[in-house]
Amino acid sequence: MARVTQPLSQPTLPAEVADRLKRDGDALVCAVVQQHDSGEVLMVGWMDDEALCRTLTSGRVTFWSRSRAEYWRKGDTSGHAQYVKTVALDCDGDALLVRVDQIGAACHTGARTCFDGHDLGAVEGRPGE
Amino acid sequence: MARVTQPLSQPTLPAEVADRLKRDGDALVCAVVQQHDSGEVLMVGWMDDEALCRTLTSGRVTFWSRSRAEYWRKGDTSGHAQYVKTVALDCDGDALLVRVDQIGAACHTGARTCFDGHDLGAVEGRPGE
Repeated sequence: MARVTQPLSQPTLPAEVADRLKRDGDALVCAVVQQHDSGEVLMVGWMDDEALCRTLTSGRVTFWSRSRAEYWRKGDTSGHAQYVKTVALDCDGDALLVRVDQIGAACHTGARTCFDGHDLGAVEGRPGE
Repeated sequence: MARVTQPLSQPTLPAEVADRLKRDGDALVCAVVQQHDSGEVLMVGWMDDEALCRTLTSGRVTFWSRSRAEYWRKGDTSGHAQYVKTVALDCDGDALLVRVDQIGAACHTGARTCFDGHDLGAVEGRPGE
């Protein structure tokens, strides 16, 4: 039997999604990652079209690292994977909400979220003030 | 009695906060806005140093509008104010988590959040896959 070589089929972002993205000057949108059941905001990362496509199709969250200029899949080095539950794009197309099941710590420091322990001491507001 | 004129005292961002901000090419950091009790992620906005300073000191959330190139205080035109509960900066200084009490709809479309109804149909991930 003759061997038939075909190009690998790479998934690409559907046009109806790509057309709605409002990318920044670096072709990125920000991605807010939230624990699906507790509602904790775990971290914020950045995605280009390819990272979003991988996230939508693989069940694992993939980001673009602005500092290292490479793709990274959360958990590949730490074991602290993020398993996708849902992904939504906001009304004006420049932010994603990625609801996940986070294994262990989301922050590279070992904290559960990247915001833990970094309170800025804001003045609290109340209606009527 | 002689009148003494003094410059208005404008609050400025404390140096220990300003020094930790990792601003993008437009001098902005992204701000994730979350309803403090339900955990809903309501919207994502953008803040420069001045918008963050106003948010930390006034009890009301102020953003920088990238499209209109001006400050805007959520609720001033819609009545849908965001009253600040807490503000935290993430581990690497490029994202803020602003926990608020949101009056009414957070989205300009009238939806409660800017992500409502914009699900992208992601494949769900599970450990072991």
